[in-house]
Amino acid sequence: MTVCIIGASMTEFGRRDAWIRGLLAEAGSDCLDSSEVAPEAVEHLLVSNMASGEFEGQTGIMNALAHDLGLHPAYAERVDQTSASGGAGVYSAWQSIASGASEMTLLVGGERMTHRSTAEATDVIASITHPVEYKHGLTLPSFAGLTARRYLHQYDAPRESLARVAVKNHANGTDNPHAQFRKEITIEEAMESPIVADPLRLYDFCPITDGSAALLFCSEEVAKSYTDEYVRIAGVSGATDTHVVHERDDPTTMGGVRESSKQAYERSGYDPDDVDIAELHDMFTILEFLQFEDLGFAEKGRAWKAIEDGRTERDGDLPVNTSGGLKSKGHPLGASGVAQVYELVQQLLGAAGPRQVGAEVGLACNVGGFGNCVTTTIVEGP
Amino acid sequence: MTVCIIGASMTEFGRRDAWIRGLLAEAGSDCLDSSEVAPEAVEHLLVSNMASGEFEGQTGIMNALAHDLGLHPAYAERVDQTSASGGAGVYSAWQSIASGASEMTLLVGGERMTHRSTAEATDVIASITHPVEYKHGLTLPSFAGLTARRYLHQYDAPRESLARVAVKNHANGTDNPHAQFRKEITIEEAMESPIVADPLRLYDFCPITDGSAALLFCSEEVAKSYTDEYVRIAGVSGATDTHVVHERDDPTTMGGVRESSKQAYERSGYDPDDVDIAELHDMFTILEFLQFEDLGFAEKGRAWKAIEDGRTERDGDLPVNTSGGLKSKGHPLGASGVAQVYELVQQLLGAAGPRQVGAEVGLACNVGGFGNCVTTTIVEGP
Repeated sequence: MTVCIIGASMTEFGRRDAWIRGLLAEAGSDCLDSSEVAPEAVEHLLVSNMASGEFEGQTGIMNALAHDLGLHPAYAERVDQTSASGGAGVYSAWQSIASGASEMTLLVGGERMTHRSTAEATDVIASITHPVEYKHGLTLPSFAGLTARRYLHQYDAPRESLARVAVKNHANGTDNPHAQFRKEITIEEAMESPIVADPLRLYDFCPITDGSAALLFCSEEVAKSYTDEYVRIAGVSGATDTHVVHERDDPTTMGGVRESSKQAYERSGYDPDDVDIAELHDMFTILEFLQFEDLGFAEKGRAWKAIEDGRTERDGDLPVNTSGGLKSKGHPLGASGVAQVYELVQQLLGAAGPRQVGAEVGLACNVGGFGNCVTTTIVEGP
Repeated sequence: MTVCIIGASMTEFGRRDAWIRGLLAEAGSDCLDSSEVAPEAVEHLLVSNMASGEFEGQTGIMNALAHDLGLHPAYAERVDQTSASGGAGVYSAWQSIASGASEMTLLVGGERMTHRSTAEATDVIASITHPVEYKHGLTLPSFAGLTARRYLHQYDAPRESLARVAVKNHANGTDNPHAQFRKEITIEEAMESPIVADPLRLYDFCPITDGSAALLFCSEEVAKSYTDEYVRIAGVSGATDTHVVHERDDPTTMGGVRESSKQAYERSGYDPDDVDIAELHDMFTILEFLQFEDLGFAEKGRAWKAIEDGRTERDGDLPVNTSGGLKSKGHPLGASGVAQVYELVQQLLGAAGPRQVGAEVGLACNVGGFGNCVTTTIVEGP
């Protein structure tokens, strides 16, 4: 059975004066309204969210959302795969339709984070990884710094190539009305911003963000009864890497990206050359390099060159993060993987406005932890 | 495709000197070992858990468990449906196999709670329900008290009939080596225990518990390549009721139980008369009455009579909670729905020892919140 996406929405990302339930309801109701699907038609509701209990003292948010959207008696479930909760939600939604469990599944991903201090938020986020590492201060930003240093050394890459990722994604974000940062930055600004985890600086990191995004899934038969404007999920899968990051043979290789994309390519029948556009998980600029390589878009150690050559710009042969990416659009944990696919849907349906590129096949890669579990989704246009 | 369960395990339930990761790994490795399935064969790992972040400050436990069991690169995901997380895990595992996403899915449900004070634990649990209610003190035990009072009045049921649920389930628990309480109680003890939420008393409530349980799922074709000792999932589904409990037309009716079981019966081809044994979510004794009725085992208002008549005893026509139920076995939130199906597997395979009854079809009903979302699973023997 071919599973399709017939609706997509996202809220404004950034510092929002709304609690998690409000954010989820905003994206969810926009998605139903814009696709003209009645709440009664929804059989499964999935909520991608990592930590509403820790961030906001509120659990059971999937049942609350079923209430807020009038979906009762639809089944409701929360899906957590840390920062890849959104991608895991896409994979779960696909399974719900492909298995016949549900005829119509609404996925809403979201997180509210900015009301907590950066220290409080990063304390929750640090607990994603193995205690043997985070208790020694090896949080996600530290891994990123260590990995970036290794990458630059091992592949003789210039430091500026990382800054180029930030500059490109900020430029794309200026054209995204939902993005948290809608301002261009220069290579010089990125290179001179404060050091966070040497050699990475402030502009190498995504922000802390509130926001939500939603997608509506059904079979192609059902999709056709609603609209001609839908995209197909060609392939989706997920895979873990070692939970202890220092056990990996090569710190510049993301095993979860390789394995999940291998399976997604196999299921789709596509290979890396067929992909026209990609949304990658640029929580840190270095991650855009690693995913670009481990997804098969460049040889190992050559992503920096592809980016310097402009291949991933909007006028390049493989535009990456036309949405602005996590870097500029923001990273509300549970929403990000859903918002990646939202951008692909806009692009494949020709609805991306000033960000529009020509694309028939799109790929989203959503990374949990420091690649501890990764999902890859490949979608194709109508 | 028929989805089967080829392995089942559970840890001792109770006050455990182990963290959540240890509990999950204990059940998970027992399940793999006893079914002689190699870790490499597992393609999906699902972890049913409500609140490891809130209870223990540890997130990403599904990735940690993939590490601890050597499952990498299997896909990993956490499934949360509050106190019905285990049943939601069974439903998700079924979808993973039936959709073709996974050939072999390991589900491990668990929670660690006893290291927190009762006030801390119930604070987390209270946040399951709608703030409009819990902020006024309407926690789950208060709902139970109000509902019990209404039920006794509306159906002219004796208070002792509730005590009988506790006495029966404690008696069953004495024969379950995994149960938290392995001691019989009398009607008099139950009737004279301290009032918690009038008319309900201490022995009408399940305890706070640490523990874990696991199940291993695959297609029947794959199952046969491993063993003859497996059970089939005949039907499984889930459904929400209103999130605001006071919006329900009749507080003694659980809409989520009715809707989820209606779908599970339809999918299985069975009806209530075909069910030989049931594990019900007796977080409060009154809930065993309500589920017994809304699952179609007795007319509305007559469950108390069925229980007084001994129908649900081990020698009755429909034994309920031969495991001891949540009341006696304990209720580690994420584990409970998994442990319910564990008991059915033991019974259907004739491996329940002194608890053994004759059964070919079993049903498990797992309740999230105060029926805010419910899953029903029907399994059949080999």
